[in-house]
Amino acid sequence: MAGILYGIGVGPGDPELITLKAKRLINDSDVLAYPAPETGDGLALKIVRSLLHNTPRLLPLRIPISLSSSPAHHAYDLSAKLLEHELDSGNSVAVICVGDPFFYGSFMYLFERISDRYKTEIIPGVSSPMACAAALKVPLVSRNEILTILPASIEESELENRILNTDAAAIIKVGRHFPKIRRVLRHLRLEKYSLYIEHATMNNQKIIQLEKIDSQKVPYFSMVLVRKIREQEVAGVK
Amino acid sequence: MAGILYGIGVGPGDPELITLKAKRLINDSDVLAYPAPETGDGLALKIVRSLLHNTPRLLPLRIPISLSSSPAHHAYDLSAKLLEHELDSGNSVAVICVGDPFFYGSFMYLFERISDRYKTEIIPGVSSPMACAAALKVPLVSRNEILTILPASIEESELENRILNTDAAAIIKVGRHFPKIRRVLRHLRLEKYSLYIEHATMNNQKIIQLEKIDSQKVPYFSMVLVRKIREQEVAGVK
Repeated sequence: MAGILYGIGVGPGDPELITLKAKRLINDSDVLAYPAPETGDGLALKIVRSLLHNTPRLLPLRIPISLSSSPAHHAYDLSAKLLEHELDSGNSVAVICVGDPFFYGSFMYLFERISDRYKTEIIPGVSSPMACAAALKVPLVSRNEILTILPASIEESELENRILNTDAAAIIKVGRHFPKIRRVLRHLRLEKYSLYIEHATMNNQKIIQLEKIDSQKVPYFSMVLVRKIREQEVAGVK
Repeated sequence: MAGILYGIGVGPGDPELITLKAKRLINDSDVLAYPAPETGDGLALKIVRSLLHNTPRLLPLRIPISLSSSPAHHAYDLSAKLLEHELDSGNSVAVICVGDPFFYGSFMYLFERISDRYKTEIIPGVSSPMACAAALKVPLVSRNEILTILPASIEESELENRILNTDAAAIIKVGRHFPKIRRVLRHLRLEKYSLYIEHATMNNQKIIQLEKIDSQKVPYFSMVLVRKIREQEVAGVK
């Protein structure tokens, strides 16, 4: 009988922010598969390593970090084959994923390739916008406010328009797109409602004032949160 | 010396979806405070009850479920006073919250009242959109797609406009607003891209086809996820 495939979110970085269910399934599965660069372990395995007490067999899925999608497609095809082989052999396979598997997680490209043929369960994880808001100690969104999640890669005019037309925004995967974001926030005069954080909940977490950020040094795992305070809320809650 | 205030997300409902950190702090705190209706325990305490092995003192915070904001303000003022009293006595206090404390969580109204005077730490939790996507086994959002979080209480024309102009939407706190949502999705011909779930990850979880939902029986803890598939993704990934 074919094994079960688990897609497991391991949270934003702090190993203590994985769920009880994730910890249990990672330890109880026959195989622990993890996305990894061409050499080395990758962040997902680093997050869970201290929590392993059983000894699942480790299976790296080598997904090159690349802007071009065709080598990635090939790597996902190969990784899917590796997972199929394990599942066909009757092994249960935990595929771990930083954050949440279905919130911009790489797991979904494996899921879309093989989930129609195997029993699959998804374990949600703590997502980066909530982890960033917690680390910044600033509420993300409340009451009837609208939150928009914006990948930093979208065009400048669209980014500006989206931020203008929402109550709160989480701009994710900032990296090299930071100068564009800062221009937009300045233009909209929203700098005082905006906060920057990188590597939230990890050992190297940094919160930096917007004007002091060195745009050459902004990592991929960084986020800008914007929240406009509505008048009635200030009057009502404070 | 004053105690520490912890704002702790306990996730969407399944007790196994709380984090290791939440479990540790709930058990190690002197006082476990929880939002509760005027009588009874409330959902947050139900989620964590089976995980309590130490014996923190239980402190219910009675917040009436009301559409009018003034009685709620009074209840939050009173609850904040209870927390202040404990913190001033040197006790560490864990305030638990369904989902994530800063993602539409009631904890933020307590936080805004007292966090400027006490040491505070926020523990993020698994949020409902990610939990719903996992339970539905449908990816929420990927690549450069934009996700909009929409409280179901917003006006019909705004709801329609927002859904029209996003790649994916999570419509939360559905309850009595369901007929409006169904009208909008029909008008936009997006029914086939829309999924409904209630009480995700709880024992009474239900996934119902949109046309079969009894609009008189839609609970508050329900969600509609909408995801339009972009052409290039279908071509690229599949």
